[in-house]
Amino acid sequence: MQQIGILGSTGSIGTQALEVIAANQDNFCVKTVAAYHNDKLLEEQIEYFKPKIAVLVDKAAADRLVRRYSGPTLILTGEEGLIEAATHTEIDTVLTSLMGFAGLKPTIAAIEAGKNIALANKETLVAAGDLVTALAKEKGIKILPVDSEHSAIFQCLQGENKKNIHKIILTASGGPFRGFTKEALQQVTVEDCLRHPNWSMGKKITVDSATLANKGLEVIEARFLFDVEYSQIEVVVHPQSIIHSMVEFNDGSIIAQLGKADMRLPIQYALTYPDRLVANYPRMDFKSLSALTFAAPDTVTFPALELAFHVGRKGGTLPCVFNAANEEAVAAFLEGNIRFLDIVTVIHSVLQQHNVVQTPNLKDIFDADNWARIEAHEILKAILT
Amino acid sequence: MQQIGILGSTGSIGTQALEVIAANQDNFCVKTVAAYHNDKLLEEQIEYFKPKIAVLVDKAAADRLVRRYSGPTLILTGEEGLIEAATHTEIDTVLTSLMGFAGLKPTIAAIEAGKNIALANKETLVAAGDLVTALAKEKGIKILPVDSEHSAIFQCLQGENKKNIHKIILTASGGPFRGFTKEALQQVTVEDCLRHPNWSMGKKITVDSATLANKGLEVIEARFLFDVEYSQIEVVVHPQSIIHSMVEFNDGSIIAQLGKADMRLPIQYALTYPDRLVANYPRMDFKSLSALTFAAPDTVTFPALELAFHVGRKGGTLPCVFNAANEEAVAAFLEGNIRFLDIVTVIHSVLQQHNVVQTPNLKDIFDADNWARIEAHEILKAILT
Repeated sequence: MQQIGILGSTGSIGTQALEVIAANQDNFCVKTVAAYHNDKLLEEQIEYFKPKIAVLVDKAAADRLVRRYSGPTLILTGEEGLIEAATHTEIDTVLTSLMGFAGLKPTIAAIEAGKNIALANKETLVAAGDLVTALAKEKGIKILPVDSEHSAIFQCLQGENKKNIHKIILTASGGPFRGFTKEALQQVTVEDCLRHPNWSMGKKITVDSATLANKGLEVIEARFLFDVEYSQIEVVVHPQSIIHSMVEFNDGSIIAQLGKADMRLPIQYALTYPDRLVANYPRMDFKSLSALTFAAPDTVTFPALELAFHVGRKGGTLPCVFNAANEEAVAAFLEGNIRFLDIVTVIHSVLQQHNVVQTPNLKDIFDADNWARIEAHEILKAILT
Repeated sequence: MQQIGILGSTGSIGTQALEVIAANQDNFCVKTVAAYHNDKLLEEQIEYFKPKIAVLVDKAAADRLVRRYSGPTLILTGEEGLIEAATHTEIDTVLTSLMGFAGLKPTIAAIEAGKNIALANKETLVAAGDLVTALAKEKGIKILPVDSEHSAIFQCLQGENKKNIHKIILTASGGPFRGFTKEALQQVTVEDCLRHPNWSMGKKITVDSATLANKGLEVIEARFLFDVEYSQIEVVVHPQSIIHSMVEFNDGSIIAQLGKADMRLPIQYALTYPDRLVANYPRMDFKSLSALTFAAPDTVTFPALELAFHVGRKGGTLPCVFNAANEEAVAAFLEGNIRFLDIVTVIHSVLQQHNVVQTPNLKDIFDADNWARIEAHEILKAILT
């Protein structure tokens, strides 16, 4: 019986993880859940899964729940609550599906406490890949990918020797604006952006998927998860999203992982690894499948991908700054304050102003993140006026 | 340094295996080679690889070579020579790339002698799958697939637990007559048949590829190599032959092996397994790849595939008889004596006459093979008159 903590239990990944766990109660048990402020949904999760600890980071939301709830689960709040949920003695594995840079601190706390990490929060590795992977090694814990692309790569690598990896081929749907010209992108709205062709996700990641910044973050995540060079990572556009990613080995053989796009599968694999469990998610039927196609990404119209490769190669605090600037720019775009193409302009301007710390410690990372957000707001102000 | 014996060294697989070995002389060394009657090519192989033993099964061919050759390699002939080449004390692995049922006896001898088998002779498992796999288990040797489909499946299974296999998805190019009607097939010639769209192979296997009998033999081979039920094997037509086969696991995840169609890759993998070695065979470039498509096989127009599933399920001596009847019918077709559609008619008629031995010993297998060939000739005579 694996005891699990879920950070971000009311989000898209968190709720799907709870579905997986509910369907496999002989194998998994939820001991802690944490969310930002959705007290209604968290209360339902408490009733169903009866965890030891439930956290609402938002104080007002936690207060509302405490007033209503009288069961045995301990309700906590704030960052301290989050850390409790991530480090509770009874849990073996923490699923980190918090959004953005906010996932870094509790993930580090969980690793410090010797928990395995089912990683859905790619920003943790983007912002602090060197520190987090070194800590994981020191503590002897596993970081198991939940992102469908990284889960695919991880599955393709089973039974293989890392030294034989020639390259990792990350597939990308290309997002809702695949094939658009820069001129056409001038006009796109938040609504256009949120109509992703292949799946429904949170708003932030859906916008990242449209700018290809998400694929850029995934490139950096892959570099740290699989300990490869950036020159060993190739992005290929595959609009049908059936092949979730591939690995090419030194003999030229390519192993790929395929399936219907359903996040429950990689979530479940991260929890059952190295074993698998029977599941009844929708299955592929090759006999009724449309053609699978592939193309190079349009890095001129969507410069965020190349920018991510660039900051990844430069290293230090640059990937952290890239991520922070992107988070702020996307928030401004979602609020209707800037246009789609401004997102990458903001990232670019923030990166240009940054004094890179080449071998940052954790404080340097947090400082860089903080600096980047302030700098982004300055630039956003200039755009707005 | 792995010491290798090659049975069928002058054929398509044998010569490509020697290319692989020539390119990796720090890892592999050829100790024995055996061919049917191509004394010219065998002599070149002897000069280059300097094996301990070289065999020409055909006595006249062996005599020709003995008269010309004066080096240190021992030249042998006949079935006894073949057995010597398969069991020589210095070899670790025998690549069995002899054509057809003739591969069975030396393969069994090699297993008896404790050699690992790089299996390119699928008829060995088709005719005597139960006996051969039981013997391999008893002797603790490995049977490593060389067929590109089976190598693909074998690669997909690395690091996975056999109990989690849901099904094996064997891909099929569909052959040169994919999409043809039965009426159109009435007219096809040997020449049409030998124009395979995706690769160049021996004549017999190219005809089998056109009738789908080859895919049927592969189904039976897969059943024994991977110890799955026939209900766990699905054939999917994939005309581009980029995905070489796949495995679907119990959680719905599918692992596939892809690459350019080049037999040197699966040959090399069988020799390096579980490791891989750098190779410079032509590589996939997804960015310039045409669409990958999939379809159900047309089992009405090409009944040999369903027939193979049927004989596989019935078991006993039936798969052996299927293979023998097919070998004889294809030989008659290649000689221009029967038409394309007669091939499966002959197989069908022979199968109908056969008294199945349900748990055959090796003698029963050889008897069934012999009986089937005689029966096939009776039926061929009837067609010819």
